[in-house]
Amino acid sequence: MSPSRLETFADGVFAIAATLLILNVDAQVNNGAGPIGERLLEIWPSYIAYAVSFFTIGIIWSNHHTVMNQLGRVDRTFLMLNVFLLMCVAFLPFPTRLVAEHLRNRHELEPAALAYGATMTVMAITYITLWLYASLKGRLLRADSDPRTVSGITRSYLPGTPLYLTATLIAFASPLASVALFGAIALFYLIESSLFGRATPETG
Amino acid sequence: MSPSRLETFADGVFAIAATLLILNVDAQVNNGAGPIGERLLEIWPSYIAYAVSFFTIGIIWSNHHTVMNQLGRVDRTFLMLNVFLLMCVAFLPFPTRLVAEHLRNRHELEPAALAYGATMTVMAITYITLWLYASLKGRLLRADSDPRTVSGITRSYLPGTPLYLTATLIAFASPLASVALFGAIALFYLIESSLFGRATPETG
Amino acid sequence: MSPSRLETFADGVFAIAATLLILNVDAQVNNGAGPIGERLLEIWPSYIAYAVSFFTIGIIWSNHHTVMNQLGRVDRTFLMLNVFLLMCVAFLPFPTRLVAEHLRNRHELEPAALAYGATMTVMAITYITLWLYASLKGRLLRADSDPRTVSGITRSYLPGTPLYLTATLIAFASPLASVALFGAIALFYLIESSLFGRATPETG
Amino acid sequence: MSPSRLETFADGVFAIAATLLILNVDAQVNNGAGPIGERLLEIWPSYIAYAVSFFTIGIIWSNHHTVMNQLGRVDRTFLMLNVFLLMCVAFLPFPTRLVAEHLRNRHELEPAALAYGATMTVMAITYITLWLYASLKGRLLRADSDPRTVSGITRSYLPGTPLYLTATLIAFASPLASVALFGAIALFYLIESSLFGRATPETG
Repeated sequence: MSPSRLETFADGVFAIAATLLILNVDAQVNNGAGPIGERLLEIWPSYIAYAVSFFTIGIIWSNHHTVMNQLGRVDRTFLMLNVFLLMCVAFLPFPTRLVAEHLRNRHELEPAALAYGATMTVMAITYITLWLYASLKGRLLRADSDPRTVSGITRSYLPGTPLYLTATLIAFASPLASVALFGAIALFYLIESSLFGRATPETG
Repeated sequence: MSPSRLETFADGVFAIAATLLILNVDAQVNNGAGPIGERLLEIWPSYIAYAVSFFTIGIIWSNHHTVMNQLGRVDRTFLMLNVFLLMCVAFLPFPTRLVAEHLRNRHELEPAALAYGATMTVMAITYITLWLYASLKGRLLRADSDPRTVSGITRSYLPGTPLYLTATLIAFASPLASVALFGAIALFYLIESSLFGRATPETG
Repeated sequence: MSPSRLETFADGVFAIAATLLILNVDAQVNNGAGPIGERLLEIWPSYIAYAVSFFTIGIIWSNHHTVMNQLGRVDRTFLMLNVFLLMCVAFLPFPTRLVAEHLRNRHELEPAALAYGATMTVMAITYITLWLYASLKGRLLRADSDPRTVSGITRSYLPGTPLYLTATLIAFASPLASVALFGAIALFYLIESSLFGRATPETG
Repeated sequence: MSPSRLETFADGVFAIAATLLILNVDAQVNNGAGPIGERLLEIWPSYIAYAVSFFTIGIIWSNHHTVMNQLGRVDRTFLMLNVFLLMCVAFLPFPTRLVAEHLRNRHELEPAALAYGATMTVMAITYITLWLYASLKGRLLRADSDPRTVSGITRSYLPGTPLYLTATLIAFASPLASVALFGAIALFYLIESSLFGRATPETG
């Protein structure tokens, strides 16, 4: 299988997972009672959750292409690691909804934040695993892959796991702080992607 | 990342957002009571809302390709502006349903029309922003992009924001007039796309 | 816009509309009461409706490519006709569910069969319209399009509208006969596609 | 139609069917009562069902490309066999949910396991049928297809049908053993794909 074939399938999952997030907002507004105007204001956590998760998926999608761009071929182990990653991506709308629904109830928010954090932590571990599998000893890299880009990717993916793990564990002390951290991490990656990404020339 | 890679992801979101619109019609008919024949006639606003939103997404999709056709490369800032645009597109089924469900209740229609209008206004702002980002000083344009097409795109996208903002604000006076205007804008763009678009030769 | 760009978007809508059909079966089994084993047998009309609609979408998808294969370019009018066709395709899961849910109630089946038939009739009209728009005077045909294939497509699409219109009108006399005809038309196209399609060599 | 055209549509269905699986988990947690933390633990069968079905679809997708890679052309009969296969793939989220919801009730699990097993058995039969149709006498094979890969595919697909049929029939004696077998078959294919697939060089 060529890298581009994998990208078609992956892009499909990314696009669908992102688009399905709106069903969470929809369900939220239908659960409520009272005039629609009030309900639309009451569910503000759903809008933030929608935006944070949409951008999180958008950034993972964009990073996925940066990775694929450096590869010359894929093997079955790499394929299955990708299926595992996509399984996490497609799972994300579920804990996103849990967080949005329970943001204003401390006791209910703790398990929701743990579910969101666990999903993101497993996703970060999968991401660095598949990248190290592909790049160590140049296993799947293109003959002309750029060593600086390769080590740059490794450097930027390594902190993901400890970052998300820490934010998750903080939920035991303060679920709200944990959720705020998830938003902050997404915002950080967004800014880092938009501003610093500009410096590196884009290829392919 | 190449422009064509971005288009695959974007086309996925456009296609899914458009196809999910039918779930709104489905939910509407299930909420009702009485014989199915009567319910099918009663929910006529859902059919119009479905058609208006489907064509709105279809036109945005078609315009998105006109934009991408003029570009030679994309950078991370442009990518993130696109993710923001797609976030608005994927959001559209939600206010569409609100408008369809509350079309016959003046007090409920006002917030629904405001939600729809706000989504379309933010989308129009995002559209012109990403286009100006890409085209000003030829930042991301192809070496052989057509200056007439480029200025034509700018001219046709600039009125979008004031148009949708005006239609949105009218909801405070008359929600129904506001909703009628949203339909009229979509119809105008549809006719403009179908008839005047024919004059320009299509490339790529 | 190139024909292949349009195909990516269209394939997305075809794939999603077909895959969403399973949500109808899902909703049906959840509406029922009693042991799951009995409910699974009771909803047999849902399985037939799922299969008929999945194959109907599959055949339209496959015919859509036969059409696109003969085209050298597309214009905006053709694009908008395609958006209209895809709007009908994405609408199909809705009347499919109506028919499946009301198959055993004569009075409820009539409006359901009319809704299904109206959707298919409008789709057939759209199909022949976009094909005639593209092929008359060779407007959008490839320079090397095959005249025999072109007239073959015209011949095989022309009966669609009267066939579906007739099957729809029969619903006023006997909804069940109407629904049986929809299944028969789908089966006919399926057999015609599988067997006679084999004779023509496939290109592109 | 070219093989790559078929792959675009098939990849769409694979990606959507896999991503829709999360709606099952979502529905499960909403059906429950009590604190969200407890409900999240209670629905553990849903997580396993999600993972097993996601990987099952991932493996079918990956095998589908191995098949397509050996083909030089497709005909209408092959297309319709593929539509039938995709119909089974898109159906899978439905019995997956049944199994997850009824895992802890022996009497309810039997019909659920039979539904899952019947779906997988029909899928296995369709798979081997379309492969034999394409490969016997080299009907649709590429001129330069690899005879060892071709006979390897035949060897690895033939056991699918008896394996799934046996696991399905065991549901009459012990639904739980049957479900455990479905998981074991998926795990076996996953390991076989990841480890042994590495030996064969990837082309295309």
